[in-house]
Amino acid sequence: MPQPADYAAVELARRPRGEVVPEDFRLVRKKIRALQDGEVLVRNHWLSLDPYMRGRMNDAKSYAPPAQLDDVMVGGTAGIVEASTHPDFRAGDAVVGSLGWQEWGISNGVGLTRVDSALPLQTYLGAAGMPGITAWYGVTRICRPAAGTTFMVSAASGAVGSVAGQLAKLAGARVVGVAGGSEKCAYVKDELGFDACVDYKAAGKELAKALAEAAPQGIDSYFDSVGGDVLNAALSLMNKDGRIALCGMIAGYNGEPVPIHNPWLMLSSRLTVQGFIISDHLGLWGEGRELLSGLLQAGKLCFRETVAVGLSAAPQAFIGLLKGRNLGKQLVKL
Amino acid sequence: MPQPADYAAVELARRPRGEVVPEDFRLVRKKIRALQDGEVLVRNHWLSLDPYMRGRMNDAKSYAPPAQLDDVMVGGTAGIVEASTHPDFRAGDAVVGSLGWQEWGISNGVGLTRVDSALPLQTYLGAAGMPGITAWYGVTRICRPAAGTTFMVSAASGAVGSVAGQLAKLAGARVVGVAGGSEKCAYVKDELGFDACVDYKAAGKELAKALAEAAPQGIDSYFDSVGGDVLNAALSLMNKDGRIALCGMIAGYNGEPVPIHNPWLMLSSRLTVQGFIISDHLGLWGEGRELLSGLLQAGKLCFRETVAVGLSAAPQAFIGLLKGRNLGKQLVKL
Repeated sequence: MPQPADYAAVELARRPRGEVVPEDFRLVRKKIRALQDGEVLVRNHWLSLDPYMRGRMNDAKSYAPPAQLDDVMVGGTAGIVEASTHPDFRAGDAVVGSLGWQEWGISNGVGLTRVDSALPLQTYLGAAGMPGITAWYGVTRICRPAAGTTFMVSAASGAVGSVAGQLAKLAGARVVGVAGGSEKCAYVKDELGFDACVDYKAAGKELAKALAEAAPQGIDSYFDSVGGDVLNAALSLMNKDGRIALCGMIAGYNGEPVPIHNPWLMLSSRLTVQGFIISDHLGLWGEGRELLSGLLQAGKLCFRETVAVGLSAAPQAFIGLLKGRNLGKQLVKL
Repeated sequence: MPQPADYAAVELARRPRGEVVPEDFRLVRKKIRALQDGEVLVRNHWLSLDPYMRGRMNDAKSYAPPAQLDDVMVGGTAGIVEASTHPDFRAGDAVVGSLGWQEWGISNGVGLTRVDSALPLQTYLGAAGMPGITAWYGVTRICRPAAGTTFMVSAASGAVGSVAGQLAKLAGARVVGVAGGSEKCAYVKDELGFDACVDYKAAGKELAKALAEAAPQGIDSYFDSVGGDVLNAALSLMNKDGRIALCGMIAGYNGEPVPIHNPWLMLSSRLTVQGFIISDHLGLWGEGRELLSGLLQAGKLCFRETVAVGLSAAPQAFIGLLKGRNLGKQLVKL
């Protein structure tokens, strides 16, 4: 397509004080600069919104450097190459990368991956992309669910949790999800096919009890991206030699303390608790993407998307994601 | 030796309310019964006192069933076979087992192990016994210290910690111990050869700062048997992909809450935290005992013993152990 005179981008205007608010972002317009040698100009068609972005908005030591004030917000994107001076990319290529919250972006090729057209482009930001690969890594490398065991996953209706639980079902495990609200729980059970789903909002203080009913044989492995109350409840139900994969801690993203109240359980049940960040394992992404893509094409993985339209809708969509208002993968159609 | 008319034993008289007190125990006299077929009568020469016993005194779910009220207290022992109707044991054999807090005991052979005379008998309750094997397992299977890395261990002057740190030194790591008091820290540095030892009592609220000074490159692996403040401080200093072996949580043995304040660190530093109980791994004890015995005979492992004399001294010695009054392995000479 012809290059526009300018395009929309969203910058980090200030660091959030507790909950994210729209004023933390700034919608700006930018001009496309000329490509240097070895660069790729991409028109982003889709922006991925993910909980990890909340951590990047803080100026705190984390697993990745913080997003810089007044820079374009970090984020995964899927788009079409419009021009290239890079030998590996040609105009028309479908690509995923991390070009941020903006309609156009320029890449030097690092972290930019060509994808085929077997699946809709945005799937490579969801079930066949970073969230799906996160689920696949945590399930296969840490949780290792098997027939006769019970697997639990928090944020079960989300982009990561929904894939994690389905992979555990394919491995033969009993799968218990945790999600917020009856609509999400119905989706998790009826569409994703989990054996049970506990509504943590409805359970309130009785969460551990509700989980115990959903997992009468205890929990052998737990895939957690929430932390806090759900993690504490899960710990109390873990079986001997249980495994917990920690891939997020959304309960603490606004700075709330999310202590583990009874770490003695990690000892008495001989648990292995392992934190991981999928960007540490880029060498495995190809394998994960291929496996997930195959399952998706075979109709063995379901997913849902919640789509906000237009970049200006991204801040509110992101705030909604952090509050759990989305179902499945949260995307912005640019 | 001729069998006495009766012998001393210590029973669990009641479950502790918080700190253990002498009244929780009852010194009694028992008679030796006749051996049935396949049994071994052992005169116990040494009783091992270990922190795990505190957990067994509670009536709470733990990794082992609780000690029973009015039963002889559980505990590791080393002694000499005085009579046997078991094909694998003969009078005169030196054996280690779990015959409890008593001067004589009868075993059906399960859990009873013959040991050679290369080392003093009581060493098989310490550096070449359960504590040493605990250290060996945690160091080699979980912490995996190596040259260029920093290894930290709590209760560094104790029976487990002293071996763990020395094994890590032999593996080439920088070794930082934590112990209570200047005397213990001097022992840890001067005799055990650790690179540094932090006195947690002197450091008080500045523990994390003191540890950071002792571990200027951060901590790559941590062997913990304490939990609580020391674990929280260690977590804040762990390097990426760090490993923590949890083998005890003495800070919480009296029922005090010992939360992990900031589990986010387990995610942001991609830590693996693994609880283990050495009695799960009986199949490895022979290998561990052989390795440790070899190092001890070669003079490559130092240890100290604190010896209480006579079974009637065991309750006070155990209380002292829980308060950290011993140096090295706490034993009772019977």
